[in-house]
Amino acid sequence: MADKTLNKSASLDEATWGHRWGYRDTHFIVNPDGSVRVTGDRYAVSGYDMPGFLPFLEETLDIKFDLTDIKPERADKPVPPPVVNAGFLAALAAELPADRAGDDPRERLLHSHGQTTVDEIYQVLYTHLDRVADLVVWPETHEEAAALVRLAAAHDVCLVPYGGGTSVSAALKLPVDETRMIVSVDMRRMDAIEWIDLENMRACVQAGITGKHLEERLAAQGLTCGHEPDSVELSTLGGWIATNASGMKKNRYGNIEDIVENVTLVTPEGVIEHLSSMPRVSMGVEPVRLAFGSEGNLGLITRAVIRIHALPEVKEYGSWVFRDFRTGTAFLHDLMRTGALPASIRLVDNVQFRFGQALKARPTGQEKLMSRIQQTFLESIKGFDLRQISAATVVMEGSAAEVEYQKGEIKRIAALHGGVSGGAHNGQRGYMLTYAIAYIRDFLTDFHIIGETYETTVPWDRIHDVIAAVEKRATEMHREFGLPGRSYVSPRVTQLYHTGVCIYFTHGFSTRGVENPDRAFAAIEHAMRETIMANGGSISHHHGVGKLRRDFVPQTLTPAAVELLREVKAAADPANVFGIANNVFALEAEK
Amino acid sequence: MADKTLNKSASLDEATWGHRWGYRDTHFIVNPDGSVRVTGDRYAVSGYDMPGFLPFLEETLDIKFDLTDIKPERADKPVPPPVVNAGFLAALAAELPADRAGDDPRERLLHSHGQTTVDEIYQVLYTHLDRVADLVVWPETHEEAAALVRLAAAHDVCLVPYGGGTSVSAALKLPVDETRMIVSVDMRRMDAIEWIDLENMRACVQAGITGKHLEERLAAQGLTCGHEPDSVELSTLGGWIATNASGMKKNRYGNIEDIVENVTLVTPEGVIEHLSSMPRVSMGVEPVRLAFGSEGNLGLITRAVIRIHALPEVKEYGSWVFRDFRTGTAFLHDLMRTGALPASIRLVDNVQFRFGQALKARPTGQEKLMSRIQQTFLESIKGFDLRQISAATVVMEGSAAEVEYQKGEIKRIAALHGGVSGGAHNGQRGYMLTYAIAYIRDFLTDFHIIGETYETTVPWDRIHDVIAAVEKRATEMHREFGLPGRSYVSPRVTQLYHTGVCIYFTHGFSTRGVENPDRAFAAIEHAMRETIMANGGSISHHHGVGKLRRDFVPQTLTPAAVELLREVKAAADPANVFGIANNVFALEAEK
Repeated sequence: MADKTLNKSASLDEATWGHRWGYRDTHFIVNPDGSVRVTGDRYAVSGYDMPGFLPFLEETLDIKFDLTDIKPERADKPVPPPVVNAGFLAALAAELPADRAGDDPRERLLHSHGQTTVDEIYQVLYTHLDRVADLVVWPETHEEAAALVRLAAAHDVCLVPYGGGTSVSAALKLPVDETRMIVSVDMRRMDAIEWIDLENMRACVQAGITGKHLEERLAAQGLTCGHEPDSVELSTLGGWIATNASGMKKNRYGNIEDIVENVTLVTPEGVIEHLSSMPRVSMGVEPVRLAFGSEGNLGLITRAVIRIHALPEVKEYGSWVFRDFRTGTAFLHDLMRTGALPASIRLVDNVQFRFGQALKARPTGQEKLMSRIQQTFLESIKGFDLRQISAATVVMEGSAAEVEYQKGEIKRIAALHGGVSGGAHNGQRGYMLTYAIAYIRDFLTDFHIIGETYETTVPWDRIHDVIAAVEKRATEMHREFGLPGRSYVSPRVTQLYHTGVCIYFTHGFSTRGVENPDRAFAAIEHAMRETIMANGGSISHHHGVGKLRRDFVPQTLTPAAVELLREVKAAADPANVFGIANNVFALEAEK
Repeated sequence: MADKTLNKSASLDEATWGHRWGYRDTHFIVNPDGSVRVTGDRYAVSGYDMPGFLPFLEETLDIKFDLTDIKPERADKPVPPPVVNAGFLAALAAELPADRAGDDPRERLLHSHGQTTVDEIYQVLYTHLDRVADLVVWPETHEEAAALVRLAAAHDVCLVPYGGGTSVSAALKLPVDETRMIVSVDMRRMDAIEWIDLENMRACVQAGITGKHLEERLAAQGLTCGHEPDSVELSTLGGWIATNASGMKKNRYGNIEDIVENVTLVTPEGVIEHLSSMPRVSMGVEPVRLAFGSEGNLGLITRAVIRIHALPEVKEYGSWVFRDFRTGTAFLHDLMRTGALPASIRLVDNVQFRFGQALKARPTGQEKLMSRIQQTFLESIKGFDLRQISAATVVMEGSAAEVEYQKGEIKRIAALHGGVSGGAHNGQRGYMLTYAIAYIRDFLTDFHIIGETYETTVPWDRIHDVIAAVEKRATEMHREFGLPGRSYVSPRVTQLYHTGVCIYFTHGFSTRGVENPDRAFAAIEHAMRETIMANGGSISHHHGVGKLRRDFVPQTLTPAAVELLREVKAAADPANVFGIANNVFALEAEK
C-alpha cells in the first residue's frame, strides 16, 4: 500500500518535497568562494552566484558564518507505530479503493506538520514530533470525502484536513493528547476543475487543487483566478478558505472571501452548501461563511465556486524608491485614497531593500557603472541615504487604459512624496523574490539561524508604532535571552485597505551556542505578538490563529462570541471528528 | 406615557410618517385638470404638474382611472388590548427611565408592520393586522438595550428589533401565534456617532441612526459613508446589517458587508463583538458575520464600526440611451469587464424609461423643441424606436482624474454599443427618481392598483431568461386571476457584479372589482419568485427573506445548513426572545 501512495503522491507535482519548504530542485548552497547559489532554474534567483548574500547577513546579524558548523538534521526521524482503529480500516477498505489510503511512515510524518518554523519544522528536523498521523487518506471525489467523514464519525476516528501543508500557525500540528486514530486527509488528488462558466466568469473547482495547478489550467484557457498568496505554488483552494487567505494581487482579484462564491463543507452532520452560487445575495445568515477561517475545525472543504477573469491584456511592473520607510508609507496612504490601486503594491523597509540587493549576481562592468550612476543620483542629487531608503514594488494588470491610468496616478502620487522610479525590472524582481524567501529560512537553519515571518493588520495610524514597538521588544528579548549578534527584524507593507494595512515581519537571529533555541524563538515570537496587539495590531492578517496564536484569542472576541463558536462546532461536529483543535478549540484543548 | 413617547418619536425626524411610505409632506395628488403633482419640495419630482402621469398608466395598465372611486382607508384601525407581562413592566420601570416605553395604540400599530405591500400595508390600511405589538421601547444607549434584552429573557417577553420600518419582506410582520408580550424595540433614539477616526477613515455609529441622519452629520464634517439603499432616508444602520443591504453606490463604497468592520450584537446569551475593529483579519470564523442577514432572529444590533470617506472631489451624473434593453445590458457587461465602474450605474427598460418621461412637467416651448430635436435624432439618425430604447443612469464620484477616467471608459464602451448620451441632467433625474417611487405605490393604492417591487440576483447569462419568464408568467397569472387591464412589469438592472447583476422588478396591476385583491397579488408575487428561481435567479439580492420568501428557503440551503442555522439560533437565543421568526425560523413557525 505504501509504495502506491508514495507514487501517487509524487505525481501530484513535478517534484516531491520533504519536510522543508517547497520543491526539491530548489535549495541554497554555498560555493567554495563563499558566494551563495540557488539550485535549479525555478525562480528569478535560481542559477547564479550571489557574492553579497553571506556578507549582508553577517553584517546585519552581527555574526560570522562558520560554514563547517552545520546543524545536523536528524536522519532517523522517529515515527511511532500507528494507532489502529480496525473497524474503521475495514469499513474504509470496503468503501474506498485501496490506493486511497497509506500508512507509510514517511508519508505519515510528512502529513503531521505544516511549515511553522519552531513548532513544526524545527521539531521534525532536529528533535521529533509529539504526535504523528496514523493514516493518510487521499479522497478523489466529493463522494469519497463524504464517505470518509461518515465512516470517521461512525468509528470514532479523528480527521485532519490537509492541503498544501503550508500552514505557519501550527494549524497542522496534531494534538498530542489525541488518543483516537488520526487520519490526515490529503485533499490534493481532488484537483479537478469541475466546470468553467465563461459567460459569468466563474468556475467550480475541487478544493485540493494547488494554486499552481489552478493557475496553469486556467491560463491554458486564457483565464486566471488571480489569488496569489506567497504560498500559491503549494497551498490549496480548500486551505485558502480554511485560513481566510489573502493574495498579493487582492486589489484586483480580491482576498479569498471576495473570490469564493460558494463552498461545499462536509461536516459529520451533513453538507453545508448554498444550493445556487450567486454574485451576491440577501438570503439571511450565510452558512458557507462558517467555512472561512474554519481552520480544519468544522469539516472537509471539498469544492468551491470561484470567480475567474480573462488574463489581463497588459501586465506591467514598476518600482519606486523613497527617502525612508515613513515616506514610503505616506505614499501608500495617499495612493490608497486615489482609488487607483494597482493589482499589487508592496513596500519593503531598508533592511529588506538591502537584502534584495544582496541577492543579486556579481555585476558586469556595465551593470557596475549603471549601479554607480543610480547610486550617485540617489545620494548626491536626491540626497537619499542608501541606508534609509525604502522601496515599493508595483504590479499593474488590466486593460491598456486601466494600467495607463494607474501608472499615471502612481507616478503623480510618488512625485508628491519625492519618490524615484526604480524601473520595471526591479519591480518584477521584487515581486518574484517572494517565492524564494521561504527557502532562505531552511538554508539558514543549517547555520543555526532561526527565522520566521509573521504578519498583522494595523489601522493606518498604528503602522509606525507597531513597527517601533516590535523592533524595541525584539532587541530587549535578544539581550534577555543572551543571543549571539543581533536580531534581523524587517517589516514590509504587503496589503493596503481603506482603514489600514497588512505588515509582514521577517524575524530571525543566530542561535549558535544557545541552549533550546526553539524555546527561545517561541518565547520571542509570542512576545512579538503580544507587542503587536498591545500596540493596535490584529492577531493575524492572513496566516490564521491555529495553535500558535491561541493565547491571544480572548483578546479578539467577547466571551459570548467564543461560546457561540463552540456551539457552532458542537452543532456541526458533535463528536469532534475534526479534532485538530485550532483557534478557540486550542484554548479548550489546553484546559 | 403615550404622549411623551409620541413627542419623542416625532422629534426623530422633521416630519413623522404614518403607515404609508415616507414623509408626511410628500404625497401624490391629482389636479382638477387630471395632471398629477407631488406635494412639498422634498424631491426632484416635487412641486410641479405632471400631465403625462395618468395617461401613461392608463395606456400601460390598459385601464381608465375613475378618480371618484377611491379605495377607502380604514379610519378605525383596530388595535387589540396589549398582552401585559406585569413582571417585565415592573422590572423595566425600575431599570429604564419612563420615557423609554410607550403603549399608545397608534405607536403600537405603527411598530407592527414594515412596508411590504400586500402582507403589511394593505392589511393595516384596509383590513387589520393579525398581531399588534404590545409595547414600544426606545432604548437610548447600548447599556439600556442590553438591560432590555436581559429583562426580556428573564420575564419571557418577545423582542422585535425595529429600525426604519422599511422592510419589504414581511420581516416586521409579527407572528400571529405569539402569545408572549411582544415588545417592539425602536432603535432610532440610538442615533449617535460615537467616534470618528479620521486617520483611518472609520466611525463607530449607534445602529439606530437613519441613513439620512448619518449622511447629514458626516457631510457636516466633509465625510460620507456612501451607503445608499433606496430607503436611505428612513432605514437604519442596524436594519442594513440585519437585512444584508446593498447601496446604489456600492461600486465605490461597497455593500453593507464591505462597509461594516465590526458589529455589536446583543443576544440573550451575551454580546457578540470583535474586541478590535480591523481592516481585514484571519482570526478564524468571524462571529460578527452572523449579524449580517440575521433579520431580527438573533439579537439587537446596537452599534457598528463603519468605513467612511472624504466627500468626493467631483460628483458627476451621466445618462446613455441604447437601442433596446438587450443592448443596454451588453453595454453594462462590457463596462463591468473594464474595471472602470462608476459609483452607480443602472439600466431601466423601455417601460420605466417612458414612465420617467411621464413624470416630467409640461414642457416649455424651448423644451418642446429640444425634445423634438432629440426625438428626431434618435429615430431618424440613429434609427432607434422610442418604444424599444433603454436608458442607463450614471453617477461618478471621486477625484477629478478618477471621474475623467471613468467617463472616458463609459463613453468608449457605450459607443461600441451604439449608445447615445442623454446628458447629465437626465442622469441626475433618473437617480433621484428612486426616492419617489415608493410614494407612487401608496398613491395608486387609492385607485385600486396594487404594486410592489422585488429583486433578484442573476448570473449574466440569465438576465433575459429571467425577465422573459417573469413577463410571461405575469401575463398568464393576470389572465388566470381575471384581472382588469394589463400588468405593469418593468425590470431594471441596479447593480453589477463580476458574475452577474441585480434585477429589480416593479410589478403592479389594477384590482378594481377584484375580490380579495391582496390574495391575488400575494399568489402572483409568489409565482414570480418561483419563476425567478426556476430560471436561475436568487431568493433575494438585498430585500432579504423575512416571511415573504420563506417557502423558497429550502431551495437555497442544504438541510444540514438549515439545521446549523437553527443550532446557531438555539445557542444565541435559547428561549427565542427574538421571536420574530424570519427566514428559516419562518419555516419553523409554520409547522
